[in-house]
Formats: sequence, structure tokens, C-alpha cells
Amino acid sequence: MIVIDGVSDRPINGKTPLSSANKEVLDELAKRGINGIMDTIAPGIRPGSDTSHLALLGYDPYKYYTGRGPLEAAGAGIDVKPGDVAFRVNFGTVKGEGSVFDKVVVDRRAGRISDTEELVKAINENVKLEVEFILKRGSGHRGALVFRGENLSDKITDTDPKKIGEKVKRCVPLDKEAEFTAKIVNEFMEKAHEILENHPFNIERERRGELKANVLLLRGAGKVPHVPSFKDRYGMKLAVVAGTTLIKGVGRILGGDVIEHERITGGKDTDLNLKVKLALEALNSHDFVLLHIKATDEYGHDGDFEGKTKFIEKIDRALKPVLDLDFSNVCLILCGDHSTPVTIKEHTADPVPITIVYEGVRVDDVEEFNELTAYKGGLCRIRGMDVMNIVLDLIDKAKKFGA
Amino acid sequence: MIVIDGVSDRPINGKTPLSSANKEVLDELAKRGINGIMDTIAPGIRPGSDTSHLALLGYDPYKYYTGRGPLEAAGAGIDVKPGDVAFRVNFGTVKGEGSVFDKVVVDRRAGRISDTEELVKAINENVKLEVEFILKRGSGHRGALVFRGENLSDKITDTDPKKIGEKVKRCVPLDKEAEFTAKIVNEFMEKAHEILENHPFNIERERRGELKANVLLLRGAGKVPHVPSFKDRYGMKLAVVAGTTLIKGVGRILGGDVIEHERITGGKDTDLNLKVKLALEALNSHDFVLLHIKATDEYGHDGDFEGKTKFIEKIDRALKPVLDLDFSNVCLILCGDHSTPVTIKEHTADPVPITIVYEGVRVDDVEEFNELTAYKGGLCRIRGMDVMNIVLDLIDKAKKFGA
Repeated sequence: MIVIDGVSDRPINGKTPLSSANKEVLDELAKRGINGIMDTIAPGIRPGSDTSHLALLGYDPYKYYTGRGPLEAAGAGIDVKPGDVAFRVNFGTVKGEGSVFDKVVVDRRAGRISDTEELVKAINENVKLEVEFILKRGSGHRGALVFRGENLSDKITDTDPKKIGEKVKRCVPLDKEAEFTAKIVNEFMEKAHEILENHPFNIERERRGELKANVLLLRGAGKVPHVPSFKDRYGMKLAVVAGTTLIKGVGRILGGDVIEHERITGGKDTDLNLKVKLALEALNSHDFVLLHIKATDEYGHDGDFEGKTKFIEKIDRALKPVLDLDFSNVCLILCGDHSTPVTIKEHTADPVPITIVYEGVRVDDVEEFNELTAYKGGLCRIRGMDVMNIVLDLIDKAKKFGA
Repeated sequence: MIVIDGVSDRPINGKTPLSSANKEVLDELAKRGINGIMDTIAPGIRPGSDTSHLALLGYDPYKYYTGRGPLEAAGAGIDVKPGDVAFRVNFGTVKGEGSVFDKVVVDRRAGRISDTEELVKAINENVKLEVEFILKRGSGHRGALVFRGENLSDKITDTDPKKIGEKVKRCVPLDKEAEFTAKIVNEFMEKAHEILENHPFNIERERRGELKANVLLLRGAGKVPHVPSFKDRYGMKLAVVAGTTLIKGVGRILGGDVIEHERITGGKDTDLNLKVKLALEALNSHDFVLLHIKATDEYGHDGDFEGKTKFIEKIDRALKPVLDLDFSNVCLILCGDHSTPVTIKEHTADPVPITIVYEGVRVDDVEEFNELTAYKGGLCRIRGMDVMNIVLDLIDKAKKFGA
């Protein structure tokens, strides 16, 4: 399954990056396959990349999605467990006197700090709470934080004010059951701040005229859901080749193997040839391989028609080895996870194109992988949650309903 | 949103009124937009105009539809409130001796009476019950009746026998909780009959040899549902331009403004140019305007192929000013609410055509607004409940589900 993030658009004068790009490989796949348009969630519902990937893998996001926190934490490498409460974290800078909640945020990224290892270690070793916690650094100023213990709730608010010049927010419980968790979170905020404020690493930063990374700003609390593993559900071993933490998180939460490499960045600078190579290699050791390519979405958010077009062409060149797959043995799904039109610069619900290549599919007249014409294909209009069922049926692993 | 009631058909020798009509404006809109077919409820489910309009406005009729009574009452101008039990009402004529329930219906329309003002006033002023009630006249012999108070139920039967020559029916409770309501209704029937029977207006009618309007026949009991207003749900101010009481009722129940005019009749004689003018004007004061055109459905019920074709052509001419809208600013939805094939003379579930015109929609190859070919469009096949979500996404007012 190749998912090109935010690949589709709304047309400008009848053209989109995808329809304009010179893309022999993608078009060849469309020619060899059956095509259609797809609402990854439902018509008109704007998908996140997390909810859409859950749906594409057959996990109803209305049932299993509990927020970005758990997926980011899993993606960052924390071995999350059902019941854990997970946050996304920023190292930030606060100034002022008194409690951490009396201080004002002067930078939400602590001067774009990136070397947070020592600070993370100090917090993990020295903060003591009534429950267990795990802090893990992510890229740059980012990280993930997980609380583990009995009776934790995600019905709590963020401590990140999300605005410079505002005070750090106290975590507030949204119901009675969440009072304990909010108390723990606020304790963590104070204790972490105390350690960071006085840490030699930060004293040294201040001496150099840099901003101290003296606060952790928490957002997106979510309770890790009970999710049946991909293996349990489908009897197939899953591998995920992705640079984006969120998508790695989806893979890990489903019990898949995440294939990482420093040159796979999840950004515009990612090594696409390496990604494709690793994905094709993973087919030897796994039954189902998800290859996620992110930067098309970034170009969409940037409103960069030309950049998106060029990147699609780069993807096309990188995917050339895919044409050599034995499609009597490998079933290929090629699709987007949502549209990110350069005109809107945000995810939209405009359907994505989908192509399925496999021996025996009803090849249609569609000659291009293109969101403007894919509706003419033999799949008509399907939903994200349909894909795994269609695949299982194609590869003859579906169970019959009835006699 | 322009809804042409019952506009679509089943073909006779490959042709339908819509496919036969000379309709430059409707076809031009189809050319400029994205097209498809739509099941306003679900495939094979025959919609009423009420349930389909609820779905088109994003209100699940399986959740919010409680019968025609509440919508007719709201449409007639009664300020209905959640919990009210509403009926559709006919003035009829009964003859015989004893209680109203011993008498026989000789005319269900009291000789097509239309001047019922005095009678309605007399009932509202002189009938006394344990609960409040409001009777409102509608067009001709029609009206609406609402009971308001604690512990009312709509699990009760009609008092209208719906056949000439039968006795007025006693209202029967369908469960224990409805016993009180049935008692109230039967008391109302007796008291209203007594007042009508002896009213000077009716004595005078009898003297002139006309039928007395001496009974109120009740049908379609429904409890007014708790419905979130259109404004609350979408943050948009709704206007409804309609002549049909039922559709006005949908608008009022959703808290919309109903734009009325004596020349807007909801019938074959309606002033279409005026309707279009008022709808376009309403765009200046409202965020969402529903323009409902009814008579196509009537021609369908009459089995009148030629009449329906001509009326579609009349609609087409009236809609000419719509072509001048700025579609970078206005999103237009053009559709039917159900089919009313002249061959069937009833609503059917055959999908309706839908066209959406807006800057950025993926314009397809469809060149006609036509139920026979609309399936070739880029929307493929959608449902009524999808429309508002698709619109909110197009106009960039949709919320993202996930990250």
C-alpha cells in the first residue's frame, strides 16, 4: 500500500499538480489497475492523516482514534500500552517568578532547541510522581510524554497556552474521574520546571545568550486505545516505511514493524529511492507493507503548486522499481489519504484517487493516476474502510458471510 | 440550494420529461459544475419531500422526523415547541345523530370550503381542555392543530377515517402513556363539533344549500422533536423560499426564515420569476438559501409527461439570473428531492440528479442536468446526508477529524 499524503487537489483552471505532473509510473499503474475515487472517512468529512490511515488499514477511526497524543508517543518510540495517557510535548521557555503556572511563555520552541537529550534524561530520572511516566524526545524541540498507572483519564486540558505572552495553563479535569490525572499532570509540570530551570545545560544556554528550555508544554492528551493488532485481525505481518512520527505511531499501535532510516525524514528532503528500496525489501519479510510519502502534503500546506508537481514527479521516478513487481503475487494499492489543495492549504474532504493493481482486477479505461478523472474507473466511489476488505477479497483471504 | 421537487423520472422509450426538456440554464449549470446521482435517503428508500429535505439539510430523518404533523403545523405558522403534539387537520362534513363519533363523514373537505377564519376563531376561543391547544387555518379546507402541555404523546391514531361514508374515528392510544392524550383529543373532537355544528356561519351555509364545515378530521400526529437549529449546527443563517407548507415547516423547525409571498403558491400557478428573485435577494441577508419548486412533483403525480416537461422549461427560463452569480463566492447545489415518475404517479427511490457549482469543484464531462446521465459525473453516487458535509468542506467551513 503506497499512500501519498495530501496528493490530490482542487483544480485551478482545470489543472492540479497531480494532473499536470509528468508521471509515467503512476499512470502506468493506473492503466494496469482498477481505479476510483475514495472518501477515506466519508463524503465531506475532512480527514487527518492519522484518522485516514487508521481507516485505510481497516480500523474505524470513530472507534479507535483517541487523539494525536498516543500515536505521536508510539511514533516517537514509547512502547505505549492500553490505558496510558499520552501527550505531545514541546520544550519551551518561560520567564517570571513563582510557580510554573505564574510564568509567561516567551518561546514555544525554546529557541528551536534540538539537543534535548540531557534534559529528557534528567526529568526521567529525577521527577517522582504517584504514577509512572515516560518522556521521550522527538525531533527538534518536540517530544512525547506518557503517564502510566491505574485510573488515568484523558478528559483533561492542555498546559500549552499555544500563544506567546500567555501564562502556562494549569491542567483542568473535564469530569470528576479526571481529577486525579489533572493533579498528577500539574505536579509533573512543577517538578519538571524546577529541574529544567536549574539544570547546568540550561544555565550554560543562558550564559551563551540562548533561551532556556525550562518548561514542557503538553497538548493533545489521549488515552491509548485497546486495538486488535494487524496480525490478529488479518493474520498478516505489517511493516510501515515512514518518516512521519504520526504514521510510525499508527504502525506501532497496530503492532507493526516500523522501518526507519536517518535519510527517511518525512520531509521534502527525504530519500525517496531509499524508501522504495526498503519497502520492496520489506515485502520479503512481511505480508503487508505500508509505504507513506509525506512531502506532497507539505507542499499543499505551503500552497506551492509548482513544488508539489515537481515532488510528484520525483515520487514517480522513485517508484519505477514497483513496475517490476509480480502482480500475480503482490496486490498493490496506490492512493492518497486526503486532499491538501494548494488553494486551501489545509486538508479537505475532496476524494482521493485510488488504484488497485493485481492479477484478476477488472481493469478499466482509466489511463492516469489523477484525482480529476479517477471517478470514471471501475471502483466508482469507495470509502477508506472498504479498502482492506477489498484487498482481502482480492487476495482470497476473505471469509464468506453466509453459505 | 435549489430543490426541484420530484423532478426526475423513469424513462419511457429512453426519454423523461427532464431529458426531453429544452433547458439551457440547467444544462449550463451542469456543464460548469460537478455532477452525480443521489439517494436522498438511501438506495431504494422512497423519500417523502419532508424526510428528503431534512436529509438534504443534514438532519438525519431517522432521528428527527416524527411525522408530517409537526412540519405542517410549523409551516402553517404555529410557533411549535419541542414536546407539542401536532396534527394535520381537514374541515369536513358529518351527518347523523348523537356523538361526533356516531356520525358519518359525507365530505372530507366540507364542499372545498376556504373561508374558515371565523370557525377557527370560534374553536380557539370556546373549546376548553386540560391542556393548551392552537388551531390554525391553512389553505382551503386544511389546517393544523397543536396540543401543548405535560405528558403528551403521539402514539395515538387518527380521527380522520380517510373515506367518505365511514364514521368519525375515535382516537385510540397505542400505549399506556398515550391514554391521556387520546382522551384530550376525543374531548377536543366533541367540543369542536358542537361549536361548529351550531355556528351561525355554518347555519348560513346550510341555508344556502352548502355543506356545513362541522367536523375537524385529524391525522398524522407527531411530537415536535428537539432539533438543533441550522444556525447552531452550521453557524449559518437559513432562509427558505417555498410555497409548500410542508417545506416551510422544515425551514421553521430548523429556525430558518421563511420568505413568503401571495404569488408563491407551491402550485402550478406559482410565480417562478418572483421566487428566483426573492431567493437571490435573500443571499444578501442570509448565508444559506433553500429555493424549493414544487409543481414538477404535481405533474408527476398527475402522470402528465408533457406538462412536466413544459414546467421544467419554465423553471429553466426563470433560473436564468442564477447564471450571473459569482461562483467564487456562492456555492450552488441543484438537485431533486426524489423522483416522481409520470409512469408511477408516486414518489420513487430512483436517484435524483445533483449538480454542485463552485470555484474549485472538479468539473466533469457531464453536459446536461439529466437523471439518465448524471451518474457519469464526478460525484458518482452520494446520499442526501452527504450534501451539507460536502458543501461545508467546499466552502472551507469543515472541521478536520484528526491531525
